[in-house]
Amino acid sequence: MSEYLKARYGSADFALPDPLPEAFRALLDRRVARRYRAAPVPDALLDAVLAGAQSAPSKSDLQQYSIVVTRDAAKIAAVAGWIGSMPWITQAPVFLLFCGDMRRGQRVAALHGREHANNNLDTFLNTAVDAALAMGTAMTAADALGLGTCPISYVRSHIEKVAPLFRLPKGVYPVAGLTLGFPEERNAPSPRLPASVVVHRETYDDAALEAALPGYDALRPPAKPRYPEVHGAAPQGCAWSENVARQLSVPERFGFAAWLRTRGFDLA
Amino acid sequence: MSEYLKARYGSADFALPDPLPEAFRALLDRRVARRYRAAPVPDALLDAVLAGAQSAPSKSDLQQYSIVVTRDAAKIAAVAGWIGSMPWITQAPVFLLFCGDMRRGQRVAALHGREHANNNLDTFLNTAVDAALAMGTAMTAADALGLGTCPISYVRSHIEKVAPLFRLPKGVYPVAGLTLGFPEERNAPSPRLPASVVVHRETYDDAALEAALPGYDALRPPAKPRYPEVHGAAPQGCAWSENVARQLSVPERFGFAAWLRTRGFDLA
Repeated sequence: MSEYLKARYGSADFALPDPLPEAFRALLDRRVARRYRAAPVPDALLDAVLAGAQSAPSKSDLQQYSIVVTRDAAKIAAVAGWIGSMPWITQAPVFLLFCGDMRRGQRVAALHGREHANNNLDTFLNTAVDAALAMGTAMTAADALGLGTCPISYVRSHIEKVAPLFRLPKGVYPVAGLTLGFPEERNAPSPRLPASVVVHRETYDDAALEAALPGYDALRPPAKPRYPEVHGAAPQGCAWSENVARQLSVPERFGFAAWLRTRGFDLA
Repeated sequence: MSEYLKARYGSADFALPDPLPEAFRALLDRRVARRYRAAPVPDALLDAVLAGAQSAPSKSDLQQYSIVVTRDAAKIAAVAGWIGSMPWITQAPVFLLFCGDMRRGQRVAALHGREHANNNLDTFLNTAVDAALAMGTAMTAADALGLGTCPISYVRSHIEKVAPLFRLPKGVYPVAGLTLGFPEERNAPSPRLPASVVVHRETYDDAALEAALPGYDALRPPAKPRYPEVHGAAPQGCAWSENVARQLSVPERFGFAAWLRTRGFDLA
């Protein structure tokens, strides 16, 4: 088991059950796949992934999300073209769009003659969480079935074009896309921040963050610099924390709330 | 395999691979556990669940979430007391609070001498999605390790008390709690809306919703009526769609955005 923990955390000083159950080992070994074989995904496998996704937990059992499935290479290419920096998306034989969906609840309320009184930020959060839980479960299902996936949050960078492409009505918005196909190659597992930074015991305490960053940065190979056009080139690549700082210092998707308001979300 | 699909969808007309891989079967058979044995969760198992949670995917690799772990029965009882309607929470030997965390990115930007320029609704969504993905993965990990869980979104109904209890600083908010323990009993699987309602092919189309509701309602045992004090009693229980309409017609957590603004979130 220790090889999975070393890949993920750079250390193996966890006291875990041995042997690890297979489903748990698979979680620790989760990776994204950004290269796919040309083979199409059979209907049965796609249906299985979708059934897996629907098994995800859902806030108050409300199931406030939708999944739009496309196998249309032209649509997938359009999304990839808008994003620009991820041409490999066009290789994926299937693209799933996970959407927060307030509309279904509004329709169900209306069908029962009741007013929908929850067009607020809490419902927006609930729809996002439901969509995220379904997407994460779809990823686990796909892995278990020999498929590969990669989540694409950048669909939200082009939301004003992506939403009409999939004819999303008011009350429905994309949380993320997910490419799906037989993996030609899986990425290496992404190392994760040490538990001392992410996990807090009894009360929140992030005093360990600053001291932990150099070790975590060292664990990760230097990556392509974010926003070189703003922050300058970095021919040797950037460490994780420097890239986080680079990315978060440039406003991204700052029109998201305004767009959502045009699509029926009060966000109050 | 068909028994899992019957429990989840009321039909077994899916063409799925046979035999199903174990990790996939476990997803289809996912259930919540609301009764726990008194036995404590050993540290090794808790660490394993947390390591599983951290293996979740994360938007742009930013890991904008935190998990606060408590084993303090008094704290768990305080949360259960505020919620009121879920006394079984006090049985759980461990309670995990999954939080969206904008603060870590703000600190990392500052450590690199850069301004954090993404205090906006998109970042709020990203933090919620990261926390949800970690929680969903923790649930799958716990199931694989013989533990049981139940997500508690109602922590947000008492956010002004829950956040200080766990000393959440500005920039950090609860998405959901998760009870964790050895299950005394697992619930039956929750049947899910038919794929014809949740899954859309090529473009969004929910024309099938109204016709699908009676069949779905029939699949589910009548449940405790939501908000009888507002909508009146329902001694025979309510079908799913009626309870959705009941719940969504009463404003819930309508102060959430206002509270978040007091905690450093611009939500712009």
